[in-house]
Amino acid sequence: MPSTPITVRWGDMDSYGHVNNVFFIRYLEDTRFALFTPDIFDLFPPGANGLMAGHRIEYRAPLSYSDGPITSTLWITRIGTSSFEIGYRLASAEGATVYAIASTALVIVDAASGRPVPIPDPLRDALTAWIGDPVPFRTP
Amino acid sequence: MPSTPITVRWGDMDSYGHVNNVFFIRYLEDTRFALFTPDIFDLFPPGANGLMAGHRIEYRAPLSYSDGPITSTLWITRIGTSSFEIGYRLASAEGATVYAIASTALVIVDAASGRPVPIPDPLRDALTAWIGDPVPFRTP
Amino acid sequence: MPSTPITVRWGDMDSYGHVNNVFFIRYLEDTRFALFTPDIFDLFPPGANGLMAGHRIEYRAPLSYSDGPITSTLWITRIGTSSFEIGYRLASAEGATVYAIASTALVIVDAASGRPVPIPDPLRDALTAWIGDPVPFRTP
Amino acid sequence: MPSTPITVRWGDMDSYGHVNNVFFIRYLEDTRFALFTPDIFDLFPPGANGLMAGHRIEYRAPLSYSDGPITSTLWITRIGTSSFEIGYRLASAEGATVYAIASTALVIVDAASGRPVPIPDPLRDALTAWIGDPVPFRTP
Repeated sequence: MPSTPITVRWGDMDSYGHVNNVFFIRYLEDTRFALFTPDIFDLFPPGANGLMAGHRIEYRAPLSYSDGPITSTLWITRIGTSSFEIGYRLASAEGATVYAIASTALVIVDAASGRPVPIPDPLRDALTAWIGDPVPFRTP
Repeated sequence: MPSTPITVRWGDMDSYGHVNNVFFIRYLEDTRFALFTPDIFDLFPPGANGLMAGHRIEYRAPLSYSDGPITSTLWITRIGTSSFEIGYRLASAEGATVYAIASTALVIVDAASGRPVPIPDPLRDALTAWIGDPVPFRTP
Repeated sequence: MPSTPITVRWGDMDSYGHVNNVFFIRYLEDTRFALFTPDIFDLFPPGANGLMAGHRIEYRAPLSYSDGPITSTLWITRIGTSSFEIGYRLASAEGATVYAIASTALVIVDAASGRPVPIPDPLRDALTAWIGDPVPFRTP
Repeated sequence: MPSTPITVRWGDMDSYGHVNNVFFIRYLEDTRFALFTPDIFDLFPPGANGLMAGHRIEYRAPLSYSDGPITSTLWITRIGTSSFEIGYRLASAEGATVYAIASTALVIVDAASGRPVPIPDPLRDALTAWIGDPVPFRTP
């Protein structure tokens, strides 16, 4: 599955001295932009955006600035009519430490109307090539 | 259930012109610090912190700077041995528009060892007073 | 001179346990949006934006989450042909502690061409009403 | 002079579609941590921190996510008894476009007392090796 290095900024840490949980959601965004540009984003219908429907994340290990850069791996866990779901694993560069696992649901919408738009076949094919296992969340 | 105003900064918006999904997770943190200080945090065992175990969030409506400040409502959805779960509703000041619903799982850990610490009775009583319904997520 | 409360988020603090210097620049932005909306921004020429030309800031005292909200006071220190300069004082709510003083230079530009646009008379009049002393920086 | 690549995150852009001016100050911090670790920071006196005294920045060209990563170059412009000043140039990877120039004044302080601490000779020598020209600000 595709992966990308993710930069950890010193300023991502909070007053507990670890990367704040909020920035992990930023790393998910960094991952999408790194890996979906241009292959996936260019296959979006003209005038359509990916609307964030939701996130789920489980934190597995504390992360510090000195641990970075980390490696983020992304795959597709579900493809619907106008929506799809992404799985992520944020791990150390060599992969031994998993910092978080997460999923994101995106809906393809027309930017002007905000209405869902069916996923066109070329985008569906590209997403299908990255299909992987469900994210192994511990809690139901 | 307790609620607090949450400030929306102009800079919370991204290049799509809406508040970026990452900042909603910041608003959950803002909510905890506003409503748990001092009543809940002061009941944590000495030397213990709340460790973030995970988040789940569903976005319901786009939010802009001009919509703020918004109102965040918090309640408790589960209390375990060393952990508890929080529900949130981020809505317009008058409550008519719901921007997001979310949940957070926190584990009480000893700051030095990182090991889970049982929730002491006074904290359990305070959390119990805020018990509410499960967060009405659309997806399973 | 006009002033506005500024929210300090817990997450604005860094791993030294104080509000990170970067967020003071965010507070300057918060101040502009709070105090320039709508009175100043609505007097910008149609299709024109304020382009950030530069900042200068001196930090005077450490700031923590528990010190907030703080009070930001803004005034105008210079008005040119197409640009103007803003002074700021970020202080405790009661004004006894000054956390930082700062200045910002803004150029009015046409959003499409990026070219400077002369300040129209109504905007010049509004800015003139807020003219104040130079920012008392310690260093030259 | 030493330089480092700086990551531009998509989320660093604001609703005008360019990197927000606030994040340039974050890039200055990123630059210090990249280039001062470990050579400069390890020469700080035990128990001493660098306290931010101030920043000055001039913005020269708009920056977008697609322009990154950029290159940040750092040098020393002044060394005092307990303080020193840093110059920066944030430019495109190949150096043709300068996005901003900036300076930072840091004071070495004892972390416990907050009192200035004299710069020890090894640190002074290391800083001296990076001495460069004043930052070419346009405005006085």
